[in-house]
Amino acid sequence: MADIALEMAETIRAYHAKGWSPATSTNYSYRDSANDKIINVSRSGIDKSFFRAEDFMCVDFEGKPAFGYESIRPSAETLIHCIIYQLFPSSTVILHSHSKYSVLMSQLVDKSISFKGYEIQKGFKGQTTHEATVTVPVINNSQDMIVFSEWMKARETELNHHCFIIRNHGTYAWGDNLFEAKRHLETLEYLLEVEFMKRCVK
Amino acid sequence: MADIALEMAETIRAYHAKGWSPATSTNYSYRDSANDKIINVSRSGIDKSFFRAEDFMCVDFEGKPAFGYESIRPSAETLIHCIIYQLFPSSTVILHSHSKYSVLMSQLVDKSISFKGYEIQKGFKGQTTHEATVTVPVINNSQDMIVFSEWMKARETELNHHCFIIRNHGTYAWGDNLFEAKRHLETLEYLLEVEFMKRCVK
Amino acid sequence: MADIALEMAETIRAYHAKGWSPATSTNYSYRDSANDKIINVSRSGIDKSFFRAEDFMCVDFEGKPAFGYESIRPSAETLIHCIIYQLFPSSTVILHSHSKYSVLMSQLVDKSISFKGYEIQKGFKGQTTHEATVTVPVINNSQDMIVFSEWMKARETELNHHCFIIRNHGTYAWGDNLFEAKRHLETLEYLLEVEFMKRCVK
Amino acid sequence: MADIALEMAETIRAYHAKGWSPATSTNYSYRDSANDKIINVSRSGIDKSFFRAEDFMCVDFEGKPAFGYESIRPSAETLIHCIIYQLFPSSTVILHSHSKYSVLMSQLVDKSISFKGYEIQKGFKGQTTHEATVTVPVINNSQDMIVFSEWMKARETELNHHCFIIRNHGTYAWGDNLFEAKRHLETLEYLLEVEFMKRCVK
Repeated sequence: MADIALEMAETIRAYHAKGWSPATSTNYSYRDSANDKIINVSRSGIDKSFFRAEDFMCVDFEGKPAFGYESIRPSAETLIHCIIYQLFPSSTVILHSHSKYSVLMSQLVDKSISFKGYEIQKGFKGQTTHEATVTVPVINNSQDMIVFSEWMKARETELNHHCFIIRNHGTYAWGDNLFEAKRHLETLEYLLEVEFMKRCVK
Repeated sequence: MADIALEMAETIRAYHAKGWSPATSTNYSYRDSANDKIINVSRSGIDKSFFRAEDFMCVDFEGKPAFGYESIRPSAETLIHCIIYQLFPSSTVILHSHSKYSVLMSQLVDKSISFKGYEIQKGFKGQTTHEATVTVPVINNSQDMIVFSEWMKARETELNHHCFIIRNHGTYAWGDNLFEAKRHLETLEYLLEVEFMKRCVK
Repeated sequence: MADIALEMAETIRAYHAKGWSPATSTNYSYRDSANDKIINVSRSGIDKSFFRAEDFMCVDFEGKPAFGYESIRPSAETLIHCIIYQLFPSSTVILHSHSKYSVLMSQLVDKSISFKGYEIQKGFKGQTTHEATVTVPVINNSQDMIVFSEWMKARETELNHHCFIIRNHGTYAWGDNLFEAKRHLETLEYLLEVEFMKRCVK
Repeated sequence: MADIALEMAETIRAYHAKGWSPATSTNYSYRDSANDKIINVSRSGIDKSFFRAEDFMCVDFEGKPAFGYESIRPSAETLIHCIIYQLFPSSTVILHSHSKYSVLMSQLVDKSISFKGYEIQKGFKGQTTHEATVTVPVINNSQDMIVFSEWMKARETELNHHCFIIRNHGTYAWGDNLFEAKRHLETLEYLLEVEFMKRCVK
C-alpha cells in the first residue's frame, strides 16, 4: 500500500471526527507519481469513520473505473476530481468537506465570499499578508456532474486559491501534495466558521 | 458475541462521544437474522460511554424480556422499538439520540420540520437530489408508551424517511442494516444542527 | 488503589476533554465505605488532563488533611465538599465543573433556573416525567468558604436535585455513587447548554 | 530528548485537537536550564497534529538558527518569542493559539479586553479573587516582526497577566514553566469564548 494512501486514510478519519463527513458523505482523491494516467478516488458509500487505504479505487481521467475496478462504483462526484486535475495539473491531492459552516455561509452570500484581515489567510498558497483580500467562489449545487463541471470551468480564474464552496453542500480544496491540500482546506473551513460566528453576535 | 452487537456497541460509544446520550439516556436495538422472534435492545440505565455488546438483552415483539432475561429491565422506551419493527418489517437496526439540536429545533416548529436544498438530504434512502423537500415529523413527548405508540401509528405515512423527532427529547432513526440506520440518523442530526444555527444569525 | 479512585480519575479526565476543567480548575471527592471518617478530595493545582487516582488526598470532615497528608494542600473548595456530605449523608461522590454554559446561564438568571418539559429531566433522581418543573439554585460566588458554606446551608431545601450552580464559576453535583453523581451533573450541564442555546436564536 | 520537549509536543498535539492550530499555524518555544543562551522554537510549517519533540530547533536570542540548525527555518514569529523572554526573564515556556474566539473577540473590542467576576480569572498568576478586573491587551497584527516587537515593548506594562491577543490572529501566553503557561493560555481562551458567546444572546 502506498504511503500516500495510508496518510490520506488517516486524514479522512481525522476530518470525519471533526464532523466534516456525516452520513457517508464526501469523497477524496490522490494521484500517484508511479502512474500519471490514473486517479485514485474514494469509492462510493463508505462510512468515513472507518475509511481505509483499501477504499480507494483507480479511475481514468474521465472518471471511468480502471482495469480491475470495473465492478466498483466510484464516488458520484468523481468528475469534479477529474476537472480539478485537468485545470490544475500540478495538483495531486483533492479533499472535500460537508462542513456545516460552509453550508451556513453559502446561504448568506451570493457568488463568492471574501476574507480580509485574517492572519490565517496566509494558509492559502502565495498569500504573504493578512492585509490582502482573498475571494473564494460559491458555485450552485447540481446533481448533473456535466453541468457542474461546465460551471467550474467557466469560473476557472476564480479558483486561484485552490478551493471553492458548493452551495448547501460543502467545500473542495486541493494542492500539490497532501500537506498543501490540508492547509488549503483547513484555512477555508476556519475562515468560514469565524465569518459565520461573527454574524451571530446580537 | 454476534458481530452486529460489537458494531452496535462501537457506534453507541462513538455517538456518546458526540454528546448524543448524556446522563445514561438513549437506547438502541437490532434484530438478528438467526432469530426473527427476538429484538436485542439495550438494557436500562447504562452509561453509554462504557456500552458493551453484553449490554443488549433479548425481548419479544411486545417488549417483554425473553427467556433467561426476566430479571433484567429493558429500556423504558422498548415499546417504541417494537412498533418501528412492526411498521417497517425490513428494518433491523434502530438508533436514538438525545442531541441538543433536535431538542432545540423541536421547540421552534410545530408538527414537522422540512428540509430543502441540502446535498446531505441524499442521505435519506431513495432521495436523489437536493431539490426535493424532505419532511420529518415531530411527535410530542409522552411518558405513556401506549399513548406514544398510538401517536406513532397514526402518523405512519409521515415516517417514510425512516426517522422522527420527539419534542424536547431527541430523535429516532432506523434502517435495513446498521450502515443505513447510521446514515439516516447522521443525516437528520446534521440538518437539525444547520437549521438551528442558521436561526442564530442576527 | 481503590477501584473508585481509578473510576473517578477516568471520569475526571473524560470531563476535562469536554472542556469542563480548564486551567487546572475544578475539584472532586469521594468517600470510601472502608473509612467513613475520611473524605478523599483532589489535591490543589492538578492539570485535570493528567489526573490520576494518586492525586486524591485524605481530609477529615472539617477539610483538614488527615494523618500522613499534612504537607499536601487540598483544593481550596474542600469545605464545599464537607458541607455537601454533611447535608446529604448518603452521598459518596461529588463532581464539579467550570462549564462555559453554566457560567453563561448564571449571568442570565437571578437566584435559580427552572427547567420544564425536557425528557432529560428524568436524569435527576426521583423525576419520572418531563412535565415536572425542576428548579436548581444559583448561589453567588465567594472566595470566603465559610461565607459560601453558610449560603449553602441557608438554601438546603433548594438543593433537593443534588446540584447547584455558582454564579460565574460552575456547577456541583453529587450522588450516592459515581454513576448517580455523573447522571446528575450531565443532566444539569445538558439543560444549561440547551437553555443558553435557545436564547441565541434571533 | 529532553522531557520538556516531549511534554511540549504532547501539549501542542492536544491543543491542535481543540482547533487552536489549523492549517500548520501557531508556534511554540521553551528554554532549557541546561543552556540559557538558546531558545528551542518550533520550526516552520509543521502540521501540529503530528508535532514531535524533534520539531523544535535551537535559535539564539535574536532568533537566528544556532550552530547545526542553519539549514532549518524557524517560525516566522520567532522574534515575538525572543522579545517575551527578554521582557519576562523568568519565563521558560511560550504558547500560542489561533483560536476562533480570540479572533472573534478581537473584532469586537479596541485596544484591550477586560474580564471581571469570573472564578477562572484566578488562573492568572497572582489573582486571588473573581472580584478583580483583569485587562488583557489586544495588539494589532503586523507581518513586520520588528514593528510588532516595538508595539509589544511599548505596551510592556499591560502584559502583566502573561498573555496578549493579536487582532484577527490569535493569542500568546507564557509562564515560568509549562504548567503555568498552559494555565494562562487556557484561562484566557476560556474567558474569550464565554465573552463571545454571551454576546450571541438575542
